[in-house]
Amino acid sequence: MKRRDFIKKAGVGALAAGAAMGAVPAMADKPVMWKMVTTWPPHFPILGEGADYIAKLVEEMSGGKFKISVYGAGELVPAMGVFDAVSQGTVEMGHGAAYYWSGKAPAAQFFAAVPFGFNAQSQNSWVTSGGGLELWEEIYKPFNLKPYLGGNTGVQMGGWFNKEIKSVDDLKGLKMRIPGLGGQVLAKAGGNAILVAAGEIYTNLERGVIDATEWVGPFHDLTIGLHKVAKFYYYPGWHEPGTTLEAMVNINAYEKLSPEFKAILDTAIARANSLMLAQFEARNNDDLNELVTKHKVQLKKFPDDVLKQLKVYANEVLEEMAAKDPMSKKVYESFKSFRSKIYEWNKTSEEPYQQFKYI
Amino acid sequence: MKRRDFIKKAGVGALAAGAAMGAVPAMADKPVMWKMVTTWPPHFPILGEGADYIAKLVEEMSGGKFKISVYGAGELVPAMGVFDAVSQGTVEMGHGAAYYWSGKAPAAQFFAAVPFGFNAQSQNSWVTSGGGLELWEEIYKPFNLKPYLGGNTGVQMGGWFNKEIKSVDDLKGLKMRIPGLGGQVLAKAGGNAILVAAGEIYTNLERGVIDATEWVGPFHDLTIGLHKVAKFYYYPGWHEPGTTLEAMVNINAYEKLSPEFKAILDTAIARANSLMLAQFEARNNDDLNELVTKHKVQLKKFPDDVLKQLKVYANEVLEEMAAKDPMSKKVYESFKSFRSKIYEWNKTSEEPYQQFKYI
Repeated sequence: MKRRDFIKKAGVGALAAGAAMGAVPAMADKPVMWKMVTTWPPHFPILGEGADYIAKLVEEMSGGKFKISVYGAGELVPAMGVFDAVSQGTVEMGHGAAYYWSGKAPAAQFFAAVPFGFNAQSQNSWVTSGGGLELWEEIYKPFNLKPYLGGNTGVQMGGWFNKEIKSVDDLKGLKMRIPGLGGQVLAKAGGNAILVAAGEIYTNLERGVIDATEWVGPFHDLTIGLHKVAKFYYYPGWHEPGTTLEAMVNINAYEKLSPEFKAILDTAIARANSLMLAQFEARNNDDLNELVTKHKVQLKKFPDDVLKQLKVYANEVLEEMAAKDPMSKKVYESFKSFRSKIYEWNKTSEEPYQQFKYI
Repeated sequence: MKRRDFIKKAGVGALAAGAAMGAVPAMADKPVMWKMVTTWPPHFPILGEGADYIAKLVEEMSGGKFKISVYGAGELVPAMGVFDAVSQGTVEMGHGAAYYWSGKAPAAQFFAAVPFGFNAQSQNSWVTSGGGLELWEEIYKPFNLKPYLGGNTGVQMGGWFNKEIKSVDDLKGLKMRIPGLGGQVLAKAGGNAILVAAGEIYTNLERGVIDATEWVGPFHDLTIGLHKVAKFYYYPGWHEPGTTLEAMVNINAYEKLSPEFKAILDTAIARANSLMLAQFEARNNDDLNELVTKHKVQLKKFPDDVLKQLKVYANEVLEEMAAKDPMSKKVYESFKSFRSKIYEWNKTSEEPYQQFKYI
């Protein structure tokens, strides 16, 4: 090929013109390289895999020009160091759940799990289309963070117990692994909410260090074998009816991205958010089936009286949180307003849908 | 700048190597220009807007190098011509709902709306993570089409009636606008399922050409003012408990896309799929509230006996469809298997969640 032909065909003229105007042509750019730290063990099923999936989509959509290296908990920073690492710009991005940061921003808990709060569908609707995201961004802005819906577990299970829960009195003195606002509700019922890291739940329950535990749902619970060390599997997961996972991005890092890469990142996270819920639903139904039919797990529903009293305590916990923290109060008002409306809509839609199976 | 520096900085060496190997550098490419035809009026709220949103995301993520022009029904091809236009490659892409193509591919209806079928959450789970997508692709492949989940209305309403439905007998002779499988179920109950285009529903109901109609849900129903021409607003939408919208892409056009643009298109559609459901949920709850409090609409639930008989008929319709069409049989088996498992899982998750509001 003659040099002149090459210049014409490869568009070097346009490229040179671009360079002269100060625009750096994309082909000459080094890839944007980001780090994402997570609160999950590396490649942890669905949760860690979801973080990996975000990185994969970003790399594919950008043709390898925007790459994100994903780190499991402890690989770069400890799980509970994710927030600070992203806030301070040590890394550009994180993946976890907002209730881990309740010590820094109590109101963030509304964007993870609220006892008797939203299921996944209502949470997605409130956050993206009901004013929730704007509030979440307001909470995180002082920390130089931009939050995203980053997955959802769906309705969780109520947990594993070795004694029957027939009344609220049965919760008194109970040593249960249950984090966050759910733990505060248990405390009001006279129980002891104990923090136990994921890797120690099985052993602690086996040895009687704890009497009971919640974890996630059939898929994850089966994986760590909780059915081997507890008799009863209770539902529903009143304490976490639609736990939202989160992605968080350092605002300075985000602002340095081109408009294309901003859109690519936002859209990759949104796709992961919905896929993770779909995966949870598909795997939970398979594994609930296995737990019941193969492992003969005894499913039990919390009695209505127990749920009723826990709901009273849950409202107290939220009211007290709102009384102490103005931002929590603001978010709680939005949450309550959306809840009262979506409850009415659910009465004519999702609630009767759930009865189809008995008709 | 010296010429040598320019070559080094702009990466022309790499570019030349690429060109020599036959790769056309991105900067020299003309934008990929696609057309998307839809079954919706232009920019129709949520549905047409969802199609617009896919195009917007694709353009943003590709930095303007992949553009999709969106056409409303009738602008380029009529609503019911979308399938053929995309199949034949007249345009690259379409947006609509799979039940519109039941004459060409009956089994496609499982990917739109099935009476007493899945809600949005279960449909998303079945399609993306439960084997549904592979079947849908198998149905569309002979038509040279690649299907996508392209939005969801959530649980629809049962429709607008001018007389009370107290028993199945009240459906006999009823002239109702209700399309698809739901219409076949109504016919089994002795009703007349009548096809009426969206723009004519209001007038036909006002003039008594039809006695009743379903449309979508509070948001769309309020928009066309159905509360002005009907007394009772029935729920639940047994005939369409989670209507899935679809995007479809011509396979030849898709295969010509770069890997980046394939990933960008797939991901844009996935984001639109979940956002549209979130928008429906947020707007429906506001507008149900307006219909009831401002317009004094009388909400009524179909009696259990009516729903029970309609479910019997619905199963007959599905069984007959499966008996006539091997592909429908194959999809129905997968649908039934997933349904039986997700029903069990729902009993311990979404179903008790729906009771929280009464506790």
